[in-house]
Amino acid sequence: MFEQLALIGCGLMGGSFALALKRAGLVKRVVGYSKSPSTTERARQLGVIDVEAPSALLAVSGADIVLVAVPVAATEATLKSIKHMVTPGMLIMDVGSTKADVTDAARRALKEQVGSFVPAHPIAGKELAGIEHADADLYRGCKVILTPTERTLTVQLKQAQAVWSRLDCDVVQMSPESHDAAFAAVSHLPHLLAFALMNAIQGQTQGAQFLSLAGPGFRDFTRIAASDSKVWRDILLANRHELLAQSQLFQAQLQAFEALMLSGDAKAIEALIGQASTARVQWQLTQAAKPC
Amino acid sequence: MFEQLALIGCGLMGGSFALALKRAGLVKRVVGYSKSPSTTERARQLGVIDVEAPSALLAVSGADIVLVAVPVAATEATLKSIKHMVTPGMLIMDVGSTKADVTDAARRALKEQVGSFVPAHPIAGKELAGIEHADADLYRGCKVILTPTERTLTVQLKQAQAVWSRLDCDVVQMSPESHDAAFAAVSHLPHLLAFALMNAIQGQTQGAQFLSLAGPGFRDFTRIAASDSKVWRDILLANRHELLAQSQLFQAQLQAFEALMLSGDAKAIEALIGQASTARVQWQLTQAAKPC
Repeated sequence: MFEQLALIGCGLMGGSFALALKRAGLVKRVVGYSKSPSTTERARQLGVIDVEAPSALLAVSGADIVLVAVPVAATEATLKSIKHMVTPGMLIMDVGSTKADVTDAARRALKEQVGSFVPAHPIAGKELAGIEHADADLYRGCKVILTPTERTLTVQLKQAQAVWSRLDCDVVQMSPESHDAAFAAVSHLPHLLAFALMNAIQGQTQGAQFLSLAGPGFRDFTRIAASDSKVWRDILLANRHELLAQSQLFQAQLQAFEALMLSGDAKAIEALIGQASTARVQWQLTQAAKPC
Repeated sequence: MFEQLALIGCGLMGGSFALALKRAGLVKRVVGYSKSPSTTERARQLGVIDVEAPSALLAVSGADIVLVAVPVAATEATLKSIKHMVTPGMLIMDVGSTKADVTDAARRALKEQVGSFVPAHPIAGKELAGIEHADADLYRGCKVILTPTERTLTVQLKQAQAVWSRLDCDVVQMSPESHDAAFAAVSHLPHLLAFALMNAIQGQTQGAQFLSLAGPGFRDFTRIAASDSKVWRDILLANRHELLAQSQLFQAQLQAFEALMLSGDAKAIEALIGQASTARVQWQLTQAAKPC
């Protein structure tokens, strides 16, 4: 389907995309570039990329598909740096967890070429970041959100849908703004809460002892706290407007629990937990068939 | 090792203990009692218990080991109801997630017999409560915290250690107060946060749409929100003093993040996430060998 993938950013997300594309026979050659030359070298040694490029621009030279897999705040500079190699038929995507800022960045950076860019967010993750953990199965069975704008070209949008579908993803389309509102609630806020919890525990004198007693509930709840600090720094900032609004709604619910605990209202507490528990059980039922 | 286990409360925790004890050949007969007769009947049909008892007192008649596996606020009434059948050599344990209140309840209910009671908290859990999900492997590889007091008899304490060790558990001993302080931080607070998050999301007009987009990070983070509402109502109330203190520390950390997001301080945000992420990665390394 494609001759050459230019992979810009050889981390968990980008590396997993390259591996999946190769395994599916969708690309002949992967040329990779990372800011850190040792990362690019490691990606080649691991067989994730075939050729190391000395710059993003040179990685894109000769490519018909480009994946930008960098922390979201680096999207604009990255797209600017490759603009002169962008050709009309090229499909350019990202994998960022925020979409309004990425769409704006693409518009500013690519100008008249912005139609080739299809903003994408695959809903997949792993406990550990880095090219060493790249996995051809990372995206299998996952949702991928595409947030095209009025300027996105139909050919590229169809190609993007086809590529992710071939990787066994469930492709969903929505506006960048709807995406960011939804993911503030179901992804960015949980990450923020997990970070804050880890810091609250380790900030205590007895923190290490407390942690030594933590069990499987804690393990699952805090898994996302191990996420990459540069990636998540950018997400918290890029989507701060929606995220702060979600955090307020969350704190109101938390404080409602606290008030009931103080007044000892067992019945009301049971009702609130029952609400949460039922919602979570219902949600799980909608997920049953998904390995992701 | 034992002739008869009296299981009071035929749910996930109690049922799993009965199955594990039977499989290990540690008990000849399990007599069960639950408040709901249909639950007791179901436990017998599933082979988790051998005999249904019409009351807690009659379940304990002839038992040499008793497990009280009820919501923690029901501990005192349960122990009172069996007191007249408690014999000097009997080992009585609970599986409650709070220990100061359970220890006090045992002191009040069992009076001069309190020495036979060894407060226990196995750190194990599952997404779904109920006897249908009872599992002989639930406790395998898990920590079990015993919180004996100055009145606990040595014979019973040693028996309790031996039983849980035979179920492949890692037995830890500490005071009820230290237990409650630690678990407020690493278990009760995460549950509270997960409940509050679910309620915050579903309280919004677009809540259902947001939930339809949630991925694997959300799945793991909210797994514990599916917990039993009666069990957790009692835990939130029994340990509210420690839990409210932990919730304040958590909110201070959350608000520190919010302030940095508002001021756009990328460097400080990255540092805070890095702190959380490193702590979580370190913690995972200490857990590597544990299936639990």
